[in-house]
Amino acid sequence: MAPAQGRATDGQWGWCNKMALIVQKFGGTSVGSVDRIRQVAEKVKGFRQRGDDIVVVVSAMSGETNRLIDLAKQIQAEPDARELDVIVSTGEQVTIGLLAMALKAIDVPAVSYTGAQVRIVTDSAFNKARIQKIDDDAIRADLSAGKVVIVAGFQGVDEQGNITTLGRGGSDTTGVALAAALKADECQIYTDVDGVYTTDPRVVESARRLDKITFEEMLEMASLGSKVLQIRSVEFAGKYNVPLRVLHSFKEGPGTLITLEDNASMEQPVISGIAFNRDEAKLTIRGVPDTPGVAFKILGPVSAANIEVDMIVQNVSHDNTTDFTFTVHRNDLRKTEDILRKVASEIGAREVGGDNRIAKVSIVGVGMRSHAGVASKMFEALSRDGINIQMISTSEIKISVVIDEKYLELAVRSLHSAFELDADADADADASGSDHL
Amino acid sequence: MAPAQGRATDGQWGWCNKMALIVQKFGGTSVGSVDRIRQVAEKVKGFRQRGDDIVVVVSAMSGETNRLIDLAKQIQAEPDARELDVIVSTGEQVTIGLLAMALKAIDVPAVSYTGAQVRIVTDSAFNKARIQKIDDDAIRADLSAGKVVIVAGFQGVDEQGNITTLGRGGSDTTGVALAAALKADECQIYTDVDGVYTTDPRVVESARRLDKITFEEMLEMASLGSKVLQIRSVEFAGKYNVPLRVLHSFKEGPGTLITLEDNASMEQPVISGIAFNRDEAKLTIRGVPDTPGVAFKILGPVSAANIEVDMIVQNVSHDNTTDFTFTVHRNDLRKTEDILRKVASEIGAREVGGDNRIAKVSIVGVGMRSHAGVASKMFEALSRDGINIQMISTSEIKISVVIDEKYLELAVRSLHSAFELDADADADADASGSDHL
Repeated sequence: MAPAQGRATDGQWGWCNKMALIVQKFGGTSVGSVDRIRQVAEKVKGFRQRGDDIVVVVSAMSGETNRLIDLAKQIQAEPDARELDVIVSTGEQVTIGLLAMALKAIDVPAVSYTGAQVRIVTDSAFNKARIQKIDDDAIRADLSAGKVVIVAGFQGVDEQGNITTLGRGGSDTTGVALAAALKADECQIYTDVDGVYTTDPRVVESARRLDKITFEEMLEMASLGSKVLQIRSVEFAGKYNVPLRVLHSFKEGPGTLITLEDNASMEQPVISGIAFNRDEAKLTIRGVPDTPGVAFKILGPVSAANIEVDMIVQNVSHDNTTDFTFTVHRNDLRKTEDILRKVASEIGAREVGGDNRIAKVSIVGVGMRSHAGVASKMFEALSRDGINIQMISTSEIKISVVIDEKYLELAVRSLHSAFELDADADADADASGSDHL
Repeated sequence: MAPAQGRATDGQWGWCNKMALIVQKFGGTSVGSVDRIRQVAEKVKGFRQRGDDIVVVVSAMSGETNRLIDLAKQIQAEPDARELDVIVSTGEQVTIGLLAMALKAIDVPAVSYTGAQVRIVTDSAFNKARIQKIDDDAIRADLSAGKVVIVAGFQGVDEQGNITTLGRGGSDTTGVALAAALKADECQIYTDVDGVYTTDPRVVESARRLDKITFEEMLEMASLGSKVLQIRSVEFAGKYNVPLRVLHSFKEGPGTLITLEDNASMEQPVISGIAFNRDEAKLTIRGVPDTPGVAFKILGPVSAANIEVDMIVQNVSHDNTTDFTFTVHRNDLRKTEDILRKVASEIGAREVGGDNRIAKVSIVGVGMRSHAGVASKMFEALSRDGINIQMISTSEIKISVVIDEKYLELAVRSLHSAFELDADADADADASGSDHL
């Protein structure tokens, strides 16, 4: 990375012994008003003055994307996919211009680019496009010239020059993809939380901010309902090994760094966090004749109806029949029951039951790979509090259980304590309030 | 122009004996709401069903450009020119998407393009860029494929890929430039008036819509205060001989066609219309020593202060001194007086006088070229009503006089009648209410 022009001769930066290329992504609420855009500009200026090269990715001002989609839906109930992207992509385009102005107003050289101007090339899947390549020439030239580069998140352009968008939350993906293309030292995602927690602090008061978490853990946490980051951006960051940091937009603090598994760290905790989800409903089809292909006969029609299935459990059969249980989103419960009743009569199953008063609780941690007994410790903690487990499902770094919804908070607190995640169990962990670089 | 695919075999269009390529421009109020956008779509569909190829140019929804500029000014009192264009160009981008959807919703194939997507290449004069060239390949291909092409007005892209805008009213220019590039049969400008009138109907009840007017006449009318069309677009249309038609967005009617002078038409009226303007003020500097360079000494400082001068009159001198009179915008009167007082003492002139209670009235018509006595007829009509003429200025197709403001309406009515422009003087002229093609 070439130093910015004039930087070497500028005495006030002489003390700086570290210069990094950082991609910073600010979401809709962080740029939701003129005042907040000014605050973001001040924050960026601080990094610049320390000598860092900064690329900023921004979302549309909060509410703007919804306003534009509403407008489109007034014209066409099912908006044309290509034209919808033409319309909604203007939200970020306004923000990049405003932030560039806010930086220039405080004497920071800056330039804005739409996705098409950078040439963030995507496929042509309008409304949910995937990034294929990024042309970073212009950005590198501007950084070398000492400018802050501001890029519209969430959008790109296909090979034919059509405007595309990456789908909701796509600005995170833009940030990570740019960081990967530029081989940035870090991609910082500014949010309304100050980091990733061991679990939801609203449920467990002693929940603790994690200094570090692995990509895999973050993926499990994110997909299980910790909505700090968009899953796709975490996958992307993991794939290209882009260090990702979650920070609060307007509070100081080190946030949480998401990186590859750190083998050097011997004291890897067994469990990093506890995720939970109360948006699901459970369906059971009982007395299913246990013949090959029966799982497909049950789930085929569900999937054909565009209903997403999460956990699936089928236990060993007895008397040549088995019970088949799975979970779907609560909103899909009635629809799925209707489908299952038809299926049940076709395959000769005994009965269909649905229950939306359930919750899923998961413990996540790369440490459980090498530690035996994690599952039994989990089940023991739950049984100690009289919580019955209805379903169990496991992956390499995660164990999920479905329980009665009413026990959710109790289960989370009980597991948080059993796996020694409470803040007082590790007093050092959250001590540092200083900046992280 | 290649016929649209399938058109030859489509029986319902078989009766159509005429197929034209038409560029239609709809301004901000014509697309100011979801309902109006739907109305525009229906109008376009009507033309399509008649077999015409249609390119539509749209402005931002009314109020939107001002909203965006206000937002920018909250960040930077003097918004950065490049970034302002990034921001305000989103207004038209939203409209093109919405109109394309509205057309698809009523089964008309349509596709939208921003200025950058078409490649309407401009210079890099942000906020007031000039069009240099237009790449019409994509548009021609879409028209051949039977699509309505919707282009964002007011915007382009420079050779470096920066977004530019053409300045206020620039959508008219986009329309005319596209019509020129595509060699369209007609460029239709839809407005809130149903055509160009012989004079302002609010002043003269019997004012009459003109079926035709020449580019030159329209230029004189426009620059004299008939604000139907942006001057630049008329110049452009004249230069490239693009037939221009002014029409009402939501009322049926033939509007007014603006074309080159029609030599075949023998019955050219002497005068096409009467324009007027009450925004000007008159300044006189008396007893100016009549030496070479004195005009520059007077007007140089005025122009250096960015004050635009309209009419200038200097009469023959007597006793080696002369009187020098000119008009400026009323808002600039005090400032200009201050400048003139300084100039007067420097050049030894006698006195400076200013008057903002004046009005300018002009008669415009290519016919006056070949008709003697037009000026005397004008002066006669004014004198008959006791109206004193303070200044006179003439061009090949226009005679302007400055009079006391209080006589303005009387003068316009008197001239309208003297030159036989009243609707009852030519009963046929406005009889046709049918569509014009």
